Amino acid sequence: MPIKLIGYAQSLPTRRVILTLNELGLSYELEAVTEIHTIKTDDFLANKHAFGKIPVLCDGDFTINESRAICRYLVSKYQKDAKIVLIPDDINKVSLIEQYISYELSYFDPPLTKILLQEVFNKRRGEPIDEAIVKQAREEIEKVLDVYEKILVGKDYLNGEYSLADLFHFPCAHYICTDTQQGDIFDTRPNVKRWLDNLRNRDAYKKTYAE
Amino acid sequence: MPIKLIGYAQSLPTRRVILTLNELGLSYELEAVTEIHTIKTDDFLANKHAFGKIPVLCDGDFTINESRAICRYLVSKYQKDAKIVLIPDDINKVSLIEQYISYELSYFDPPLTKILLQEVFNKRRGEPIDEAIVKQAREEIEKVLDVYEKILVGKDYLNGEYSLADLFHFPCAHYICTDTQQGDIFDTRPNVKRWLDNLRNRDAYKKTYAE
Repeated sequence: MPIKLIGYAQSLPTRRVILTLNELGLSYELEAVTEIHTIKTDDFLANKHAFGKIPVLCDGDFTINESRAICRYLVSKYQKDAKIVLIPDDINKVSLIEQYISYELSYFDPPLTKILLQEVFNKRRGEPIDEAIVKQAREEIEKVLDVYEKILVGKDYLNGEYSLADLFHFPCAHYICTDTQQGDIFDTRPNVKRWLDNLRNRDAYKKTYAE
Repeated sequence: MPIKLIGYAQSLPTRRVILTLNELGLSYELEAVTEIHTIKTDDFLANKHAFGKIPVLCDGDFTINESRAICRYLVSKYQKDAKIVLIPDDINKVSLIEQYISYELSYFDPPLTKILLQEVFNKRRGEPIDEAIVKQAREEIEKVLDVYEKILVGKDYLNGEYSLADLFHFPCAHYICTDTQQGDIFDTRPNVKRWLDNLRNRDAYKKTYAE
């Protein structure tokens, strides 16, 4: 039975999982969710995601949700057969990767999500963009990226070697570049720009965004 | 060289690490941070935490920051010698624990943090409490806890057996109970109440909150 991914290919969390599937060279079937009510049914809430969210991954009898947890599951189960290491065995290395994963959740994602809510989702719903929120979020992410610029001095990836931490950062950053007016925040910082270009040029990323 | 924890014992993220240290039966020295400027120095930013935050853990030559990453490090390194399992070996079990860890970050923590910001931190700074924010956050967490109430039917802990996912939830919930007017949200849901009582009654938790 192939791996089934229930999601919406254009959504950030679903993209995070597809990137991981592609990095691990895994084939999967995407069960596309296009109508919100399908993820709010009693059956979906009881058997797929208690909060009625996507993505959800079904691998045989095992069902798991939440994009970062799904990615971790895929690495735990399939990395040993893949040509890539997203989470290494070494305790210190993996712990620093966890530190960068936490940076993504704590500092990188929140201001970028504020920009996306305004410039993508409000726009899509025909609601006005609150420029004050965008301005504040931009100031916030500028400070965060100044720190990333230092972290990335002389490095191709956050922890030196490529890892799941880099992958977790990409979908949100890429969305900012393609769908908002704020993509220049990454270009004006050479180390951050090089890092994102390194990710963009990986085969799994090209494949994911070409699909 | 003993494990050194740089933090502030009353802060939620530091408490999360202390709970983990106590569960694993590890001794440590707390280097208490009481002045904010000490974590914003060039030395601290370069060698302890790039964003100038606490807690930070130093274990011999190895330094790691971000509370959840620190807890994961402690489990990876010391669980094998401890009498407790916070993250099991089984891939499916650990993946579901990761799912509950993501629930904490995505759904449980954000509304509770909004309440804490108003009822604890604003109050402490002499700033007014925005009751509209508290009301909205309360409505949000009520819906989230309704889902937890279902998840916890017939279970002592989120994934059946106790794990790091339960531990990650506790400091924020406990703070709401002790320092805000909103603690009743946990009491009116029998499964949620039983779960938090199970945690509260663990030796490591009693020890942590008695210190």
